[in-house]
Amino acid sequence: MTRRRQIYEGKAKILYEGPEPGTIIQYFKDDATAFNAQKKGTISGKGVLNNRISEHLFTLLGTIGIPTHFIRRLNMREQLVRQVEIVPIEVVVRNVVAGSLAKRFGLEEGATLPRTILEYYYKDDALGDPLITDEHISAFGWATQDEMHDIADMAIRINDFMAGLFAGVGIRLVDFKLEFGRLFDGDFSRIILADEISPDGCRLWDLKTDEKLDKDRFRRDLGGEAEAYQEVARRLGLLTDGTVSTVLDMDEHRKSRGK
Amino acid sequence: MTRRRQIYEGKAKILYEGPEPGTIIQYFKDDATAFNAQKKGTISGKGVLNNRISEHLFTLLGTIGIPTHFIRRLNMREQLVRQVEIVPIEVVVRNVVAGSLAKRFGLEEGATLPRTILEYYYKDDALGDPLITDEHISAFGWATQDEMHDIADMAIRINDFMAGLFAGVGIRLVDFKLEFGRLFDGDFSRIILADEISPDGCRLWDLKTDEKLDKDRFRRDLGGEAEAYQEVARRLGLLTDGTVSTVLDMDEHRKSRGK
Repeated sequence: MTRRRQIYEGKAKILYEGPEPGTIIQYFKDDATAFNAQKKGTISGKGVLNNRISEHLFTLLGTIGIPTHFIRRLNMREQLVRQVEIVPIEVVVRNVVAGSLAKRFGLEEGATLPRTILEYYYKDDALGDPLITDEHISAFGWATQDEMHDIADMAIRINDFMAGLFAGVGIRLVDFKLEFGRLFDGDFSRIILADEISPDGCRLWDLKTDEKLDKDRFRRDLGGEAEAYQEVARRLGLLTDGTVSTVLDMDEHRKSRGK
Repeated sequence: MTRRRQIYEGKAKILYEGPEPGTIIQYFKDDATAFNAQKKGTISGKGVLNNRISEHLFTLLGTIGIPTHFIRRLNMREQLVRQVEIVPIEVVVRNVVAGSLAKRFGLEEGATLPRTILEYYYKDDALGDPLITDEHISAFGWATQDEMHDIADMAIRINDFMAGLFAGVGIRLVDFKLEFGRLFDGDFSRIILADEISPDGCRLWDLKTDEKLDKDRFRRDLGGEAEAYQEVARRLGLLTDGTVSTVLDMDEHRKSRGK
């Protein structure tokens, strides 16, 4: 592999300069963090699975007309994406009471919300990603009203599609996080879906047993994180070709050899 | 004074049943609390001043067409108001960075905001009055979209009027809190301004010196709380008739006698 310039290292991914101008390589790590990186760990094979799951979801979302940064998967841990300017807002879509929403309003986890709730958080680790409103976004110029309109529209369509997709494989889409970016064309830019969609940023519960198949297993020390991510990939039909499972086996093998 | 039924005792006011159906008596206490009542104290004469300041502001706001619950002041510590169903939302209007906004976004206190920010907080002491968005208000049914539209419109008009009024007497209106209520007429209701507007719920800084003339003196142990409230009343022209100052003197007298 040729040397390439690292642009950014985040909690779960590394971004490298891509082979052509305007492209980026997303490398998916096994590192897991929670509670604003106060808790750190590793989920073996997570990067491989998230790369594959996110590829699958972004490709499907593309088919219903959601513009995304995804170009193609390069290998087990990397995908090629369009370079965008990330909007500094985490968009959270909630269908069921869980996590910080339960805590903030003293609500019981698991209750279906009267309607879907869109929340925005300012992407700033040092500030603990505070909840924000359209008023803050407008006053501080984090996005224009047109951009927020596009983001809200897409978030609602993505939610409908993903809720259906996961319901079809026995999974309740409780909530999830999205990030969007500005794709520039000369002086103009448009909003497209960026980052990733994976069990790292979604709450996915088994429809029958309410078993958590997402990063809450890590956050809450429930164990079985790797198996939960694999189960999501399996239900989405992504482990049938043997590729991912082979690499996971190799990861396991390498790990046990290292001991 | 005849016995009357107490309806509610809050941190700074007591509500009694009024003389006619649909009316309430608001009694203004000297009690001061801060940080969700973790800090408690007394500001001598505060109730008398807030009663008078709030009467003045609500009366003036009525003249520009803001519907309010205020009927008339009854005595030094009491006013007669219309009975409403309080909307469980604290509306905060911000012109200048201060308090929780500074902390939340790591901003310096005192910077003028690029534009006025309206914030909503869910009125629930046990939950610490969390910040909420239109999405939460709609999903949990705390107010209708029409009601929130009326509330936002009124809040912006009130801000413009009060910013002007205070600028005229050398005071910078940094931010303030409003509460609204539903006034019922049969099955129908409309939104009117309720509660109070006083230095308890406003940040008021001297235009020249930035001296704080509000409850931050109490929150931050700056001292001189009673004098600051009196200064606001004085600048608004409310101490010229001698009534308030006489009662304040009486309060002082009573206090020193009690020692």
